[in-house]
Amino acid sequence: MLFWGKSGLEFRCLKILFGHPDPLVGDLTGNREGILRLHDEARALGASLLVLPEMAITGYAPRDLLLRDGFVAAAEASLAQLASVTLDGPPMLVGTPRSVPGARGLRNAVALLRNGEIEAFHDKWLLPGYDVFDEDRWFDSGDEVLHFDLEGKTVAVLCCEDLWHGVDAGVAGYSRDPLSQVNAELILSVSASPFVAGKAEVQKSRLLAVSQRTNAMVAVLNQFGAHDELLFDGRVLLAEPTGSVTRLNAGWVPGMTVLDGGDLVGHPDPDPLDELVHALACGIEGYVRKTGHESVVLGLSGGLDSALVATLAAIALGPEAVHGLCMPSRYSSAGSLEDARALAARLGMVHLHDVDIEPIHEALRLSLQPVLGNVEGVTDENLQARARGVLVMGLANAQGLLPLATGNKSELAVGYSTLYGDMCGALLPLGDVFKTKCYELAVHINRHPQRFGFEEPPLPENTITKPPSAELRPDQCDADSLPAYDRLDRVLEAWIEHGKAEDALPESDLVGEILPMVQRSEFKRRQAPVVLKVSPKAFGPGRHIPVVARTRD
Amino acid sequence: MLFWGKSGLEFRCLKILFGHPDPLVGDLTGNREGILRLHDEARALGASLLVLPEMAITGYAPRDLLLRDGFVAAAEASLAQLASVTLDGPPMLVGTPRSVPGARGLRNAVALLRNGEIEAFHDKWLLPGYDVFDEDRWFDSGDEVLHFDLEGKTVAVLCCEDLWHGVDAGVAGYSRDPLSQVNAELILSVSASPFVAGKAEVQKSRLLAVSQRTNAMVAVLNQFGAHDELLFDGRVLLAEPTGSVTRLNAGWVPGMTVLDGGDLVGHPDPDPLDELVHALACGIEGYVRKTGHESVVLGLSGGLDSALVATLAAIALGPEAVHGLCMPSRYSSAGSLEDARALAARLGMVHLHDVDIEPIHEALRLSLQPVLGNVEGVTDENLQARARGVLVMGLANAQGLLPLATGNKSELAVGYSTLYGDMCGALLPLGDVFKTKCYELAVHINRHPQRFGFEEPPLPENTITKPPSAELRPDQCDADSLPAYDRLDRVLEAWIEHGKAEDALPESDLVGEILPMVQRSEFKRRQAPVVLKVSPKAFGPGRHIPVVARTRD
Repeated sequence: MLFWGKSGLEFRCLKILFGHPDPLVGDLTGNREGILRLHDEARALGASLLVLPEMAITGYAPRDLLLRDGFVAAAEASLAQLASVTLDGPPMLVGTPRSVPGARGLRNAVALLRNGEIEAFHDKWLLPGYDVFDEDRWFDSGDEVLHFDLEGKTVAVLCCEDLWHGVDAGVAGYSRDPLSQVNAELILSVSASPFVAGKAEVQKSRLLAVSQRTNAMVAVLNQFGAHDELLFDGRVLLAEPTGSVTRLNAGWVPGMTVLDGGDLVGHPDPDPLDELVHALACGIEGYVRKTGHESVVLGLSGGLDSALVATLAAIALGPEAVHGLCMPSRYSSAGSLEDARALAARLGMVHLHDVDIEPIHEALRLSLQPVLGNVEGVTDENLQARARGVLVMGLANAQGLLPLATGNKSELAVGYSTLYGDMCGALLPLGDVFKTKCYELAVHINRHPQRFGFEEPPLPENTITKPPSAELRPDQCDADSLPAYDRLDRVLEAWIEHGKAEDALPESDLVGEILPMVQRSEFKRRQAPVVLKVSPKAFGPGRHIPVVARTRD
Repeated sequence: MLFWGKSGLEFRCLKILFGHPDPLVGDLTGNREGILRLHDEARALGASLLVLPEMAITGYAPRDLLLRDGFVAAAEASLAQLASVTLDGPPMLVGTPRSVPGARGLRNAVALLRNGEIEAFHDKWLLPGYDVFDEDRWFDSGDEVLHFDLEGKTVAVLCCEDLWHGVDAGVAGYSRDPLSQVNAELILSVSASPFVAGKAEVQKSRLLAVSQRTNAMVAVLNQFGAHDELLFDGRVLLAEPTGSVTRLNAGWVPGMTVLDGGDLVGHPDPDPLDELVHALACGIEGYVRKTGHESVVLGLSGGLDSALVATLAAIALGPEAVHGLCMPSRYSSAGSLEDARALAARLGMVHLHDVDIEPIHEALRLSLQPVLGNVEGVTDENLQARARGVLVMGLANAQGLLPLATGNKSELAVGYSTLYGDMCGALLPLGDVFKTKCYELAVHINRHPQRFGFEEPPLPENTITKPPSAELRPDQCDADSLPAYDRLDRVLEAWIEHGKAEDALPESDLVGEILPMVQRSEFKRRQAPVVLKVSPKAFGPGRHIPVVARTRD
């Protein structure tokens, strides 16, 4: 296999280590210690250079913590402490905020630490300001590309978006072009690029184009780990001017990736559904651990969504860390309880409780009767959903469990969920996964149980095949209130993820029914749990839609 | 009184009308109709010019609606329709988004409509990107200041932040300066500047400085009305190079302000507490009406916060639109119920219901017992708060009422509230008002009942004077769990509103206790209702703090 370097051999003398720690945003001490452990390892391996992700000092993104008096100074002090270990160890490239006079007074920088000192900085030029990104809120742009000599080779440093002059989807194009300044044999770009299904493919072709334009090797390192709604895969990609691009690791684990004179071992791009499972599990695991929890609790209805969330949580945390509550009502079918129990058994859950909500529902109905007369319709359905929410939260409070909500993106989009009911939870793992994709995921996990640590298919067949129902009134079916999910999801994807105009939407006979549902439920989403972002446009901080608005004439 | 114009008389020939409609974001048709009504009025009055606020076509801020295919084109079509009425009526200045090639492809523009045509645009130069502002997400900057001739006078047009070169609190300073291009006798600046207590004072001194630097009259028009968390007062200010600055209206009502050759009638700056009441009432009224509701529902505990929210809602909507629920538990004091009833009677509320939560609380406890054993402590307290939340939401669902949450900023900051319990509601009117300020407001309203439409002091004395308690366990007092509110609020104000470093905070003996409470409750705030912003830093979209983070070492 032709290895890297313009001549194929030129770089064999270098050993570059790409570190992907799992930072906790704002935890300067913990993050520094994580980097020091990697640096020890790099020293032991005789590395030429240790490369760390964008903002590795603070974790990406510290957001408005950057505006707090003293935070940036503390980050700078942490960087100075790190520099000292390069006196008797390999140099480092590490992402950090740094103060520089200017409108914001701050740069998104990559520091070169060498010989015990902070030798130089690259300040990110292109600051994304779309979707979940808001970097020009905190940073001024840089205007010079850092070049440095590494054992006789010239290395240029870039930061994430700097590679994307003129082509990014978020804006029509950045007017400034850092690549125009690059004159190097190797470009090292550090990034914190949140997972979006399919994004790695786009990045690969971009890297190739950059490599060919600059006639340089281009290596990109991404942050690893979950931060609130954002998931980072820790991938390392390498492009060569010869036209090949190689993924140097499988991603989704913390640690280190080595690039040296040995044979280049390329990793295949992961199967998209495998990767979606990894991403969601990473998000659950990170959120739970980084908030100081060990275990989660969720309501198990016997339906697909809760079964899938329980399965993902079991993948992320182990089945013993997943507590399930079965909460049947007068409208629950016998099959539902059986399906929930079957799931728990297949997953190997050890904490499963049944709580009949009938007495609570009845107490709520009786209490409201003097005020409302007969309690019926949506009011009565919501009482049941909210009684369940109170029970899940009660278990969470009493046992220190983190509550997971079990809705999906289709429901969340049209408001087919009860605020303070089934929307209760700190995290909504499937909130960016359409119902049709939830089915695909369930079928996929069942088809390849071993890939995810199971011996047998974890999801009961009946959970996947029965018609979806909220079971909040007799013989209720989702199909009574909603269009078929495949048609619904096509409209939602075009409207929400691609921002298409109304008259350009598919399934035009449904548009007039669906869009008002989306608009009317904005207030619910404003109070939704954190949604793990896996699509180009997730509900949450990357979507700034007013709550009070008329979005259609 | 010296009137406007450098000579004191120069502009007497002009009659400028400042329109402050009450836009609904995204409602292009409704907003256009509102502007047309004002234009009819302006025509009847023989106006020289009708000035409308920033983004009057769409309402400010349309946020990501701007990214939707077709939205800007529809706004531009709406502008073109408006232009036609200037053929036989006065010209207009009106804020609008417009497409212009560039990185974002969009400008935050002010259009000059005259003689039936769109004659020219001013594109806003300085795009705020701090606190609740995010304008460089959507817009490119302009680079020319529109000047036009109006009956022989030269008028320069600016847009909001354009006046603030070099001095804004959000950034160290904008590097570009639109004022350097101004050469006019009158500057008209249109804005959508959200209410923050004390901001008008700062703006006045800025206007004076601008007027003296440019030797021009400077008039500023602000948007009126509530939009989600943002409140706009509709004020019109006029500064003269002679050194005087005049408030031309009292603000907080939609309509029109006339500036003509008559005597200039200055309005005094409102009393700060009066203005806070107006702002909060405007926020409640706007949210309720613009979401298609007429009435609200809230739990009345007999305590200060719920009494104050009910009072503000009565001011905003009339007492008959305020539905109260008294929901005593085993721990409620007899006095609480009496206080709640006294409040309802004094406000003139006609919808007041008692629902004893004891049977619901007991059903919840019994249901959880097999799982948890004895239900006690915070778990049990939260069951009560959540039972109340379910009841409030039940009434809201059954009767189409908008639920109001009753917490204050101090509670919200330290997490002294129950998610899905007392935090239930679409709107949290006091979420940006510290507890000590809530007391001030209550005393103020009681001291001046007539100012707010009451004949007698509406709040029962006992509600104001008794020690605050959540009444969720026997003899509970807020002071058992929290520092005294005056000391707590001093720390919170310095930490949250002013971003001070930890070692610069007041009440240093409390800091170690308070800051971790703030940090640990970030997840609750992520799911909080819309908080009406009245301070420099409100919880909500203007504060980008990660949920999962370590914010102190």
